[in-house]
Amino acid sequence: MTGPRYTALVQTLPANVPFVGPEQQERARGAAFAARIGANENAFGPSPRAKAAMAAADIWKYGDPASHDLRLALARRMGVDPLNIVVGEGIDGLLGYLVRLLVVPGDVAVTSDGAYPTFNYHVAGYGGVLHKVPYCEDAEDLPALITRAREVDAKLIYFANPDNPMGSWCSGAAIEAALRDMPEGCLLLLDEAYVEFAPEGAAPEIAAEDPRVIRMRTFSKAYGMAGARVGYAVGAAALIQSFDKIRNHFGMNRAAQAGALAALDDQGWLRQVIADVGAARVEIARIAEACGLRALPSATNFVTVDCGADGDFARWVLADLVGQGLFVRMPFVAPQDRCIRVGCGTQAEMALFEAALPRALAAARGDTP
Amino acid sequence: MTGPRYTALVQTLPANVPFVGPEQQERARGAAFAARIGANENAFGPSPRAKAAMAAADIWKYGDPASHDLRLALARRMGVDPLNIVVGEGIDGLLGYLVRLLVVPGDVAVTSDGAYPTFNYHVAGYGGVLHKVPYCEDAEDLPALITRAREVDAKLIYFANPDNPMGSWCSGAAIEAALRDMPEGCLLLLDEAYVEFAPEGAAPEIAAEDPRVIRMRTFSKAYGMAGARVGYAVGAAALIQSFDKIRNHFGMNRAAQAGALAALDDQGWLRQVIADVGAARVEIARIAEACGLRALPSATNFVTVDCGADGDFARWVLADLVGQGLFVRMPFVAPQDRCIRVGCGTQAEMALFEAALPRALAAARGDTP
Repeated sequence: MTGPRYTALVQTLPANVPFVGPEQQERARGAAFAARIGANENAFGPSPRAKAAMAAADIWKYGDPASHDLRLALARRMGVDPLNIVVGEGIDGLLGYLVRLLVVPGDVAVTSDGAYPTFNYHVAGYGGVLHKVPYCEDAEDLPALITRAREVDAKLIYFANPDNPMGSWCSGAAIEAALRDMPEGCLLLLDEAYVEFAPEGAAPEIAAEDPRVIRMRTFSKAYGMAGARVGYAVGAAALIQSFDKIRNHFGMNRAAQAGALAALDDQGWLRQVIADVGAARVEIARIAEACGLRALPSATNFVTVDCGADGDFARWVLADLVGQGLFVRMPFVAPQDRCIRVGCGTQAEMALFEAALPRALAAARGDTP
Repeated sequence: MTGPRYTALVQTLPANVPFVGPEQQERARGAAFAARIGANENAFGPSPRAKAAMAAADIWKYGDPASHDLRLALARRMGVDPLNIVVGEGIDGLLGYLVRLLVVPGDVAVTSDGAYPTFNYHVAGYGGVLHKVPYCEDAEDLPALITRAREVDAKLIYFANPDNPMGSWCSGAAIEAALRDMPEGCLLLLDEAYVEFAPEGAAPEIAAEDPRVIRMRTFSKAYGMAGARVGYAVGAAALIQSFDKIRNHFGMNRAAQAGALAALDDQGWLRQVIADVGAARVEIARIAEACGLRALPSATNFVTVDCGADGDFARWVLADLVGQGLFVRMPFVAPQDRCIRVGCGTQAEMALFEAALPRALAAARGDTP
């Protein structure tokens, strides 16, 4: 008996995954990590109100497929209409839907070389052709992305502000200015997963009905609910409504919907988390600099640390940190792969990092103890 | 400025949704439902152990993208290898992934006319051509589905056992016998969402590596966790692994993973729920028969009640029940649309149904009070 007849595209796709989870690394090493500071999660966690709302949810009921109440609250906060907002299973899920709306085999998308791999995964998954633009001084280069999009007739540009994995950012005004050069029929996907951590002015002013941009945000980062899978996209109503043609309408976890709504209502908690993250950023920079390394400026909940040599050296540092029980990751692409990416953790996690980093550097330099 | 350039397929898709949620109906009518017995949810709810596990989950962490522990536990229970199991965002999510693996525009799938609309939604969403086979005596007709699949060179057959919306079922032995006629290169998607409610012998014996079948199950029904979105598919390892090429790897809610694992471990609770559902089935049948209606035999957590006339009459009955504050649904297609579908609710909900049904029938018959 033969097996199922996969599509021609599926037959060409690799079975590798965008990221290996820390649990799989823990199973492979046979021990739990002492510090979980590698996936840009938020160790300070969600608002107690969000936790209470999740615990109180009637999980025997399906979630509201329209995510009505959450969309309404988000719309009020963003100053847009609820019809400008779609809620989905994390930004990852919404990325997949958006690519599906636009890309068939041969269609072109543009991103930065070394930017978020899950976007690339979805473009490849729908047969798209991906063009990559290098980082410029460790930041995604929006004007260059737009120029490339024009050259290759791209349907879609991925641009994150602030950026992951470098933690860099640009002003909203710079984004607004760059948008003037957007080619017709090209959509800018503005990933704002980390925007709550960024300085004032990092979010551009974009009219909800502007057909050139869709912005995506999440409850996974500043709101501390990565495990809940709640992302949202804001854009022109026609584009937002098109998600209804293809999305998993009953895909949202009901407790997660309630938790996100409650989290949004607790802006005091959010401010405290942002302050805690800010303090941890300072701490990571201090630890790095005490070891003679440079911490890159960060507008996110992680700090990218330049290990001062090449990618092989940084990979040694990373491997040693992992061996010491710290879950950390690093950029994939040169020259950014000279860095490691360290998440803003609890004080206990920061203390572990402070103890581990000198040893990891010594090991990478081949110093014998 | 023009908008984004959607794919040709997306431009042809309707924006309507497979189901309107009860919350949207409540918003439209301006009042909450007194009985929520329309979405085949499980009012008896999840195991307290599952609730405790969900409340204890560290929701600030992403879920394990491999759903390792849950797959291991499911594999033990099913007597298969974990490589034969993929966990996803409900059966709805897994249906979408499976269709994407197999169907490009023009490819053919077969289902029953009036069976689960979300399968049809996904086939249409990937441009597939759907052939429909009529129900036979209010049951899906697997031999006829297979015959049709052979005639139209289908890649995929949808077949639910037990069936939704009719509640009917066939023996596992009958499925095993029918499988002998499966055409080469055709996959049977066996939707077993309700199988825990079915009599002994309803689940066929199928070797895990049988390339002809993928079976799907869920924590939404007997385990009482519809809002958690945890489904799983069991099939040949090569097919299961192919989901990794396209799925949202970080799509699973972490608390839902923990809750499902705990629910699986509380088979005593499951047995009690199945008993409670069985009692409610008897109660619905008694109420229907007291009104002179026939309750169809059910192997699910709902009972489909033959209103004894045509679809228009049943739609009147349904509309009146909804007007009385009972959330119920009904089959879409004739002649099954002579029925309404009533979920097994709490005793309070069954009492409301008992009070409402005679009034709804009188209204539909045009009797003046």
